[in-house]
Amino acid sequence: MSITITAFDRSPDGGRGLARDTRVRWALEEAGQVYGVRLVSWSGMKEADHLALHPFGQIPTYEEGELVLFETGAIVLHIAERHAGLLPADASGRARAITWMFAALNTVEPPILELATARLLEGDRPWAAQRMPLVLDRVRERLGQLSRRLGDDDWLDGAFSAGDLMMVSVLLRLRIPGLLDEYPKLAAYVARGEARPAYQRAFAAQLAVNKPLAD
Amino acid sequence: MSITITAFDRSPDGGRGLARDTRVRWALEEAGQVYGVRLVSWSGMKEADHLALHPFGQIPTYEEGELVLFETGAIVLHIAERHAGLLPADASGRARAITWMFAALNTVEPPILELATARLLEGDRPWAAQRMPLVLDRVRERLGQLSRRLGDDDWLDGAFSAGDLMMVSVLLRLRIPGLLDEYPKLAAYVARGEARPAYQRAFAAQLAVNKPLAD
Repeated sequence: MSITITAFDRSPDGGRGLARDTRVRWALEEAGQVYGVRLVSWSGMKEADHLALHPFGQIPTYEEGELVLFETGAIVLHIAERHAGLLPADASGRARAITWMFAALNTVEPPILELATARLLEGDRPWAAQRMPLVLDRVRERLGQLSRRLGDDDWLDGAFSAGDLMMVSVLLRLRIPGLLDEYPKLAAYVARGEARPAYQRAFAAQLAVNKPLAD
Repeated sequence: MSITITAFDRSPDGGRGLARDTRVRWALEEAGQVYGVRLVSWSGMKEADHLALHPFGQIPTYEEGELVLFETGAIVLHIAERHAGLLPADASGRARAITWMFAALNTVEPPILELATARLLEGDRPWAAQRMPLVLDRVRERLGQLSRRLGDDDWLDGAFSAGDLMMVSVLLRLRIPGLLDEYPKLAAYVARGEARPAYQRAFAAQLAVNKPLAD
């Protein structure tokens, strides 16, 4: 059955690969799956047709025959369960890889999204400068813990998995605010993720839709 | 194999059931599983023994023989996959229920956690009053979308699932700030969740550990 995902017709990041369709593209590339893309405009995401697919009016969505999914985590897990390359074969390793997916999305990403909100949506507010150190400290607490757990390993738990795919994708959001370089082990981890051929193909595919902006 | 989870020896919410062990207890009760609980102190969560189980120094963790998991979402999914009662039998329904788990944790909960942070950690800061309306608006945007998707249905997608368990658990955090009553359909949805015998048992079990505080 053919797979269709949705993506921004023009990503707010100008092609840096931070929009969440890149995570799904990466998973599909790791799994060797061909997919189609339907582009959606910023205003189109809030219209009834798209809301029928995604109740929160976001991208990506995933359509495969009659099945419609939203939420990047759920889509990546669905792909990982159906194809080799993203989850270990043994049940315990599989459960631990899925744990890292949830850790990326529910423990590491929330303070990073708070940082993005503080910069992009509240950057011109009177409290912005005074509040920023608190926001940064919350991100750093998580990064320190993650870096200590990763240690000198290549990946979070044995071979590369959907957990690493998600964690690397979340950490990539820290490159622009400059936090990643404070944690050399995490910076090297992200670089290992970016070096994977499947990531390269996913990044190029999203870039082809978006013109890059200067940093 | 016996199951052991961790929980606060004294929950910061004083027994209102908002600590994340309640979510895991609820899942285990829905699945009819017996479990043991090891209580951990606030300072004990940051010590090496506990960090070996949970790299971010939180509760709950889940131990079952050699398997150690952390992250509430991953633990609930692990339970749901192994026992009846929390996921539909058909593959598509199962994928959609898992989608709602991720939606609860990665789309609905982050702005709710931001609200908790604004109230509890930044409530005495000079910007607290001026910033609060922005934080509340972000929560309300998600609640409006969720309420429209739920409509007059009892549960998010057919029968009760792990997706509902997680969404109800996330929405329960809104009772103290009073936002839930603005959305009668969501308030009724949460009440349906709380009325389930498995939830009642989970709530009573966590309450037995904690003395209730006055609101």
